[in-house]
Amino acid sequence: MKLSRFLLFSAVLATAACAPKQAAAPSALDTIFSRKSVRSYTGQDVTPAQVETLLRAAMAAPSGMNVQPWRFVVVRDQAVKDVLASGFNKMIAKAPVVFVICGETTLQRPDGPGGETTLSENHNWTADCAAATENLLLAAEAMGLGAVWTACYPYEDRMGPAREVLGLPDNISPYCVVPCGYPAGDDQPKDKWKPENIHYDRW
Amino acid sequence: MKLSRFLLFSAVLATAACAPKQAAAPSALDTIFSRKSVRSYTGQDVTPAQVETLLRAAMAAPSGMNVQPWRFVVVRDQAVKDVLASGFNKMIAKAPVVFVICGETTLQRPDGPGGETTLSENHNWTADCAAATENLLLAAEAMGLGAVWTACYPYEDRMGPAREVLGLPDNISPYCVVPCGYPAGDDQPKDKWKPENIHYDRW
Repeated sequence: MKLSRFLLFSAVLATAACAPKQAAAPSALDTIFSRKSVRSYTGQDVTPAQVETLLRAAMAAPSGMNVQPWRFVVVRDQAVKDVLASGFNKMIAKAPVVFVICGETTLQRPDGPGGETTLSENHNWTADCAAATENLLLAAEAMGLGAVWTACYPYEDRMGPAREVLGLPDNISPYCVVPCGYPAGDDQPKDKWKPENIHYDRW
Repeated sequence: MKLSRFLLFSAVLATAACAPKQAAAPSALDTIFSRKSVRSYTGQDVTPAQVETLLRAAMAAPSGMNVQPWRFVVVRDQAVKDVLASGFNKMIAKAPVVFVICGETTLQRPDGPGGETTLSENHNWTADCAAATENLLLAAEAMGLGAVWTACYPYEDRMGPAREVLGLPDNISPYCVVPCGYPAGDDQPKDKWKPENIHYDRW
């Protein structure tokens, strides 16, 4: 009986050690396939610790020449949310936290003839901001949160109000706006698998 | 003894069911934080089933107005790889499989005055292709593969040769090139966490 008790204990322990990990940490592939655009949120707040994890995920994105041009404005102020929502989508006003992903559009490099700093355009800033945004959306899904990518760049009627209400410097452009909270509804992932979008070796 | 055998069996089963899942399915957050640019590959091939999973992950990305403008050219032909590599990075020639992520730059909509199809620019195609690319990179990391995002758009000296060797139609633009294989080296993720890139409510 001692052996059987030990084994029972082991079985319970092994099962217990297994189950909570699966519940708490969905796999990367499952998260990619279950991510969906979430446009309505419960009243539950998103904590500062959750915001930090989301931003850490965003900043773990790849960046052309490792410039890391992304900048983040984390908005909880209702007046700011309302301005962002007016140019975009109403759900921005109702999310507990809103991320405005921005990018530095210029490169400052000490590559002038006498070593002076020169300014040039960073052609990769939108790609880097997009990768950071996708990381943030996937992290939200993995954490049981819901979010949605709303485009800002290159629509001047959305970028203008965002620039003004956020007080962005001239070399910082808003890229997109991501409201985030706990999902209230039944948003489901879309099946977008289309083999006809794949070509082999040549078009 | 029958009970103890059953319990032993249960303990082994529970442990077995637990451990391989953890090894085979890294969590989404772990994958986001461990993803790195992998630029050298072993000789091991990437299977068609793996390629399909990578493309399924890419096509699960968000897409503005659900247009899904992404198109994928999966390249294994060495001559095509060599051309892509000459305009980009040498590792493209050495990867077992290379993904060229392309985008349809125009929208065809039946919104002419008499219901005719009209053509307009799709302003979201680069964002959608970038999100699809990031999904593909994360899926590769989760599957034990390695990959790297090499920019193509908007550099004409890279886009021209890619367009030509792939035979892309006029309304399809190459966006980026992602060589993929089993990691040969010791590429490590970079720590890009910079709290100074975060602002609250306003800049």
